[in-house]
Amino acid sequence: MSQPLTIPARRGKAHRVAKGETVRVINTHGEQVIDTWAFNAEDLTEFMSMEHSRAHMLKIIPVVGDILRTNRRRPILTLVEDTSGGIHDTIIAACDRHRYAFLGVEGHHDNCEDNLHAAMREIGLEAPETPSPLNLFMNIPVHPDRSVSFEAPVSTPGSFVRLKAEMDLVIAFSACPQDILPINGVGHLPTEAHFVVEP
Amino acid sequence: MSQPLTIPARRGKAHRVAKGETVRVINTHGEQVIDTWAFNAEDLTEFMSMEHSRAHMLKIIPVVGDILRTNRRRPILTLVEDTSGGIHDTIIAACDRHRYAFLGVEGHHDNCEDNLHAAMREIGLEAPETPSPLNLFMNIPVHPDRSVSFEAPVSTPGSFVRLKAEMDLVIAFSACPQDILPINGVGHLPTEAHFVVEP
Repeated sequence: MSQPLTIPARRGKAHRVAKGETVRVINTHGEQVIDTWAFNAEDLTEFMSMEHSRAHMLKIIPVVGDILRTNRRRPILTLVEDTSGGIHDTIIAACDRHRYAFLGVEGHHDNCEDNLHAAMREIGLEAPETPSPLNLFMNIPVHPDRSVSFEAPVSTPGSFVRLKAEMDLVIAFSACPQDILPINGVGHLPTEAHFVVEP
Repeated sequence: MSQPLTIPARRGKAHRVAKGETVRVINTHGEQVIDTWAFNAEDLTEFMSMEHSRAHMLKIIPVVGDILRTNRRRPILTLVEDTSGGIHDTIIAACDRHRYAFLGVEGHHDNCEDNLHAAMREIGLEAPETPSPLNLFMNIPVHPDRSVSFEAPVSTPGSFVRLKAEMDLVIAFSACPQDILPINGVGHLPTEAHFVVEP
């Protein structure tokens, strides 16, 4: 197994992944939401899209075997293993500076949107926009009355998902810095997480 | 009441709307899905976003009184009246040429993505991307097992929604040309629809 790479607490990390490799995303401390994006390495304007993926998976949360698709409806990642309890989110936007202003924060607050763009720049790339992310480990139940709520993760320390790359791609993560809502656990404490790229 | 404007069958239509005006979107024949977008008239890179709206409405389908927000989390439209039965969709992407290729269509098929961009160009504007649309009258139930299905509309002829503009905006519609899935009724017959801008 390759060396685990760190997604620092409240920060992002991007990495190139070759077609056929898998990425194990580890919820090291168990309650950390990881916003996840994937871009076609050859053309960053093609990227993983939740609204296109849902139309083909016919689900709002992927399960093992499901294919995540791009905005051109091509497979980009397949969920091949999930020890986390299977609760993830595809319907909520990445947090951004407007989100924290809305929640009453004055001045700067770390956020997933800025983390995506900073992580991409760290490896010399510019994300063309902020796609709606695959929010790994995020617990947003959709209730029978069509309401949604923000709940603490159900995942446990060391649990993980494994995603297989269906094309050469750039994967980007943000360890969500949300510390006002309980989305990263009732302790409201954002933590680091890890990932491993495997052949 | 102003003259109703036509959204032609299988085609798009865009229109400028001033802050405070309302737009009545009429399902003239009762079973037509209308993909709907809204852009800030002063800056088209700010637009109605389903993933941001859901995070604030705390629902996957807006009801009367709910505010649709932009990708900067500002109010852009409020749903102020709905006689259609209240079934709409916020989770499925606009259909596009890739969708019809996936469904086995060879060659050209009208699609909502192309309709958005053509409608904007018709009034001298260029949409910066294809945001995930508010799919009025579209019936995509989310089942308790988190699966979704494509069903016929529940709306009736002449039923409508009324949307209030919360900023000066450009609204764009596409009368969805989907004739393979039953999303525009079990007759699979895309039709025209109408809208009226009212003070």
